[in-house]
Amino acid sequence: MMRFTVVCLALAACGGQVGRAAEPALMPMPVKVEAASGRFLVDANLVVDAGGLSAGRLTPAVGWFLARVSRQTGVPFARQAPAAADAKRLVVECAGGPAYPTLGEDESYTLDVSATEARIKAATVEGAIHGLATFAQLIQPGPEGFQVAGVHIEDRPRYAWRGLMLDVCRHWMPVEVVKRNLDAMAAVKLNVLHWHLSEDEGFRVESKRYPKLQEMGSDGAYYTQEQVRDVVAYARDRGIRVVPEFDVPGHTRSWFPGYPELASAPGPFVLGTTGGGPGGAAMDPSKESTYAFLDGFIGEMAALFPDPYWHVGGDEVNAGAWTSNEAIMAFMHEHNLADARALQVYFNQRLLPIVQKYGKTMLGWDEILFPGLPTDAVIHAWRNHQSLFDAAAQGYRGIMSWGFYLDHLSPAAYYYGNDPLGGPGSENLTPEQAARIMGGEACMWAELIGPDTVDSRVWPTTAAIAERLWSPKEVNDADSMYARLAVVSRNLEFTGVLHRASRQPMLDRLAGDQPAGPIEVVADAVEALGLGTGRAGRPSVWAPVNRFVDAAAPESELVRSMEQAAKRLVADPANDREDAAFLRARFETWAANDAKFQALAEDKALLNEVKPVSKDLSALGVAGLKMLDYLTANQAAPADWLTEENTELTRLSRPPARGPRGAPQAPRADVLLAAFRPVKVLADALGKK
Amino acid sequence: MMRFTVVCLALAACGGQVGRAAEPALMPMPVKVEAASGRFLVDANLVVDAGGLSAGRLTPAVGWFLARVSRQTGVPFARQAPAAADAKRLVVECAGGPAYPTLGEDESYTLDVSATEARIKAATVEGAIHGLATFAQLIQPGPEGFQVAGVHIEDRPRYAWRGLMLDVCRHWMPVEVVKRNLDAMAAVKLNVLHWHLSEDEGFRVESKRYPKLQEMGSDGAYYTQEQVRDVVAYARDRGIRVVPEFDVPGHTRSWFPGYPELASAPGPFVLGTTGGGPGGAAMDPSKESTYAFLDGFIGEMAALFPDPYWHVGGDEVNAGAWTSNEAIMAFMHEHNLADARALQVYFNQRLLPIVQKYGKTMLGWDEILFPGLPTDAVIHAWRNHQSLFDAAAQGYRGIMSWGFYLDHLSPAAYYYGNDPLGGPGSENLTPEQAARIMGGEACMWAELIGPDTVDSRVWPTTAAIAERLWSPKEVNDADSMYARLAVVSRNLEFTGVLHRASRQPMLDRLAGDQPAGPIEVVADAVEALGLGTGRAGRPSVWAPVNRFVDAAAPESELVRSMEQAAKRLVADPANDREDAAFLRARFETWAANDAKFQALAEDKALLNEVKPVSKDLSALGVAGLKMLDYLTANQAAPADWLTEENTELTRLSRPPARGPRGAPQAPRADVLLAAFRPVKVLADALGKK
Repeated sequence: MMRFTVVCLALAACGGQVGRAAEPALMPMPVKVEAASGRFLVDANLVVDAGGLSAGRLTPAVGWFLARVSRQTGVPFARQAPAAADAKRLVVECAGGPAYPTLGEDESYTLDVSATEARIKAATVEGAIHGLATFAQLIQPGPEGFQVAGVHIEDRPRYAWRGLMLDVCRHWMPVEVVKRNLDAMAAVKLNVLHWHLSEDEGFRVESKRYPKLQEMGSDGAYYTQEQVRDVVAYARDRGIRVVPEFDVPGHTRSWFPGYPELASAPGPFVLGTTGGGPGGAAMDPSKESTYAFLDGFIGEMAALFPDPYWHVGGDEVNAGAWTSNEAIMAFMHEHNLADARALQVYFNQRLLPIVQKYGKTMLGWDEILFPGLPTDAVIHAWRNHQSLFDAAAQGYRGIMSWGFYLDHLSPAAYYYGNDPLGGPGSENLTPEQAARIMGGEACMWAELIGPDTVDSRVWPTTAAIAERLWSPKEVNDADSMYARLAVVSRNLEFTGVLHRASRQPMLDRLAGDQPAGPIEVVADAVEALGLGTGRAGRPSVWAPVNRFVDAAAPESELVRSMEQAAKRLVADPANDREDAAFLRARFETWAANDAKFQALAEDKALLNEVKPVSKDLSALGVAGLKMLDYLTANQAAPADWLTEENTELTRLSRPPARGPRGAPQAPRADVLLAAFRPVKVLADALGKK
Repeated sequence: MMRFTVVCLALAACGGQVGRAAEPALMPMPVKVEAASGRFLVDANLVVDAGGLSAGRLTPAVGWFLARVSRQTGVPFARQAPAAADAKRLVVECAGGPAYPTLGEDESYTLDVSATEARIKAATVEGAIHGLATFAQLIQPGPEGFQVAGVHIEDRPRYAWRGLMLDVCRHWMPVEVVKRNLDAMAAVKLNVLHWHLSEDEGFRVESKRYPKLQEMGSDGAYYTQEQVRDVVAYARDRGIRVVPEFDVPGHTRSWFPGYPELASAPGPFVLGTTGGGPGGAAMDPSKESTYAFLDGFIGEMAALFPDPYWHVGGDEVNAGAWTSNEAIMAFMHEHNLADARALQVYFNQRLLPIVQKYGKTMLGWDEILFPGLPTDAVIHAWRNHQSLFDAAAQGYRGIMSWGFYLDHLSPAAYYYGNDPLGGPGSENLTPEQAARIMGGEACMWAELIGPDTVDSRVWPTTAAIAERLWSPKEVNDADSMYARLAVVSRNLEFTGVLHRASRQPMLDRLAGDQPAGPIEVVADAVEALGLGTGRAGRPSVWAPVNRFVDAAAPESELVRSMEQAAKRLVADPANDREDAAFLRARFETWAANDAKFQALAEDKALLNEVKPVSKDLSALGVAGLKMLDYLTANQAAPADWLTEENTELTRLSRPPARGPRGAPQAPRADVLLAAFRPVKVLADALGKK
């Protein structure tokens, strides 16, 4: 068994500064990292030498690696091999492994880098791909050009199932969006794309057998079968399995415009122009024709997806859709099905052999757990952590998405702390039960996002989730994670995702023909609120994704660095001039910004909701400047004033309150003014004087 | 004849501030713009109603328009038509026109926008596309959402040939790079992509008849014929002709590895790893087999390109390649060809009937002008302006690229002032001769650029060239151009080009795992030097494009705004507090930056050359602060000190000097520290005290 040692090069200097790690920031952190001597230069003479294993999946994987490293360094790698004497050899020793990534295969690798050679050893292509991803993260500009410092790494994943679920239905995500996210997934060693392909608001795959599914169940935006095969191959070449989800029997309203006979209500159905949610019709489980259709459909689709796991969805079935239908009620009575829950069990019992007939193992959201479900099925926990433990206790394997919902826009630290095998209840698991918990998936539901914003909601947060799922349990220091995440966030841009690049055009859009500077100042100081974490209601999925909140990040890097500066400053207010100057400059910018913002926003509808936020930000700037003055002069602040400011800081620390029902609502920007945090640090210090 | 009136909505407030025009900034400026009442809302109910003309080129053009407007507004346009009562109709009245864009066709259009309707009228699809491009530039965020203010526009181009030449050979440009540049070209009404497809350093198109051209004449990067057809169709749908160039008989070294029998030297040939230039072998004009090959090749390629014009190159033939070959010399003697020039005339006389045989009209660089060249040939002037006038005087049509070389990285104002029908010599042209001057092309040679940087060298500069070629001659105010260009530059990002977005990752690459802030401060204050305008020598085209200069813009928007602020300040130093504060903040940032920069750059080879620039910038910041103090206090500066500073400012105003030949050269960043300009304004004002 591999010895477990974390020699975290990055930890030592991590606490102090956002965006600066003492050594190359790896994420996920490997099991073992030991510095070695020398440095390996990465220039045009780099050659990836995979020995005899030139065929199969390794060749495209090396192509992916070189393209990414080329973007990272600006070095175009020679397509023809350089002369042997000049070659910088990155040797990949790899026995091979299956042609398609396989759950549970050996993903371990070692990486040794010296001045003369880099060498990855892995049992499988999967491990080799992970080694290449680690090597790419290690590349840094150095005294002679780009380099990797000498190192010895041993690594393997803690969990076998490390996924990202992407909802491409509620808002359409074109192929290039999926592909660039696959590139980023590979960079942080995720190995499952859970592709949520049908939903109330849209059916997103071409069926040749039932073409009205996509023709009447979408707005024209769907993947052709050729595109599906292309994406599956693209993922495979990056070590990523693709698990499709066609959610049944609920969340199926987009199936019904083309095939109303599947529905629990008479129709006619028109693809909705209103929001999602669990209401509305479901599939009719009482008709034989429903199962015949599903057999035909799954038979067609199963051939597109080589992965042996098949996600049937199964969540949030609207009981009323069945209990309000007399024929279905009669069927339930006839079959002794006491309630809608029992009817869903019946449905799943009928669905199971269809899925099995096409060689697939059933996987579903935690509602699918029912008596008689074979224990090779996999339970996908989303409602709570306990459902995962319950499933494991009953003999089922499980994966966790509870606590990994990216649409909540929670802080990375929240997701990072969410260990599938941690938390209350985990202590009761036997080792055998614990072994059934295979990992987890970050879930990117698409009510609030579009192709322009999805990257900024998935990244860099998902890198922290990837570390939770890959690295040893003991790698759990949030400060270290944030310090490395700031570096990894920039590094991820070289994979092709646009989580950073997409922001400026969104701000420019709001500013029209004027410079967006004043909007950017506010955007840097806020954090976007997500579904269930302060966002005002569930919006129409048909609304434009073009608000200020859509350009704002879930976490503010600027505010984090200011908060850290404030903490250092209050520890030594008389001498810490650098932090004082940094904070003063930012507070001055805030204080002066509102006048500019209001002038810019005056005639722009989309900025109305941001006006109060901007006003609050400038007030924070003014307060922060005063607090700096008191602190650096070692004076006490007037008690009344400080009390008032603290009241204001408390107000700002909470998502904006909704007014009484029915009353006219003030516009809400759906952001938290995170800027209160560094000011609070100063206020707390003054309060102790 | 259309009445010519420029009612420049944007001009009034243009002088003062970079990045802010009083009204939507149009570029190219139309012939006539008149404000009208009302505003037309651009929301999800927008419908482009092209009447009966749903077939043909207009349909994809409307798709292009909607995709661009969707990025610009964040509004996803309904694929299904909204109810008639809700529809916001943008009516396109258009008679049709040719299936492929045609030189000289009627490109005029009118655009009328009111609260209830927008209407484009055009004779051809070409005109309709231009009207759509104007409409998109008019969209602004407003009090009720995105809108176009009421307007009446009449417009038509001054020149019929408005092109961009893209060299995809010296550095390879993948299809997506070409496509996104086509999208941006259409946005500024350019109508020709001159695609430079073969060059000494690479042959970039698949030939099925002579496959060794691309196989041995490239590093594996070339367009398949399917991709060529795809790009040509993509351009056509945006109103853009594609004119291919296969440069002969010089610049042909990439042809020779596969087909050494074409060459004037015995070979063997290996695709070079050194720079371009006019040296080396050329095609052998003395062999019949050369013409047989060209006949076969042009015959194959002509079928790929529907445009009737065929660019034969013809520039910079190395006379020595011919005169050093005994067989060629014997051939010249035999045919009474006195010199290499005469031999090139012979070559062109043989080439001409081949080009004509495949239905093409010959077009070539100005060296091709020879006795007997038919007057339907087109002369492409690059060596000087006079060659264009000479050709016109001799009865040839011509286009101009002299003065439009984007690789020089000249200021936009330089290109903007370069009227094909202006300057010395133009006054001698008869109206008939003047009418032969059809327009011009911006030339993007690719010695110094790669796919990451090409956009930032083409845009936004080429928008100014597009205005020169489209708008009335009288539209020539550089201040107005710059004010609108700042807006158009941001707006162009919505077409898909990455001239702004590509910068940050390039800076991040230089900074490695540290925040790039200190590098960005320097990058904002410099201007990249181009070939022939201060850049140190001609680099190897095989070198990485990853230096600091590659991330720097040809013109600094920040420095321009500081220079303008300085000019306002010196006019009223006692009262202009806003400009003083703006300048002070920037000078403070500069003054404090070098310490941070040097710490960051310490161990990074790629930043060595930038260290002196950073040092100079901080010194400028310190000097600027002192000058601000003197000016705002209405004090005279010490004469000695001011003299010293002026000496320094003069030094900085020139590209860095090269040391003596043979001596060790200090590293040169190949940038001009534009930051000297606002400081010079202050110094000049102090000098008058």
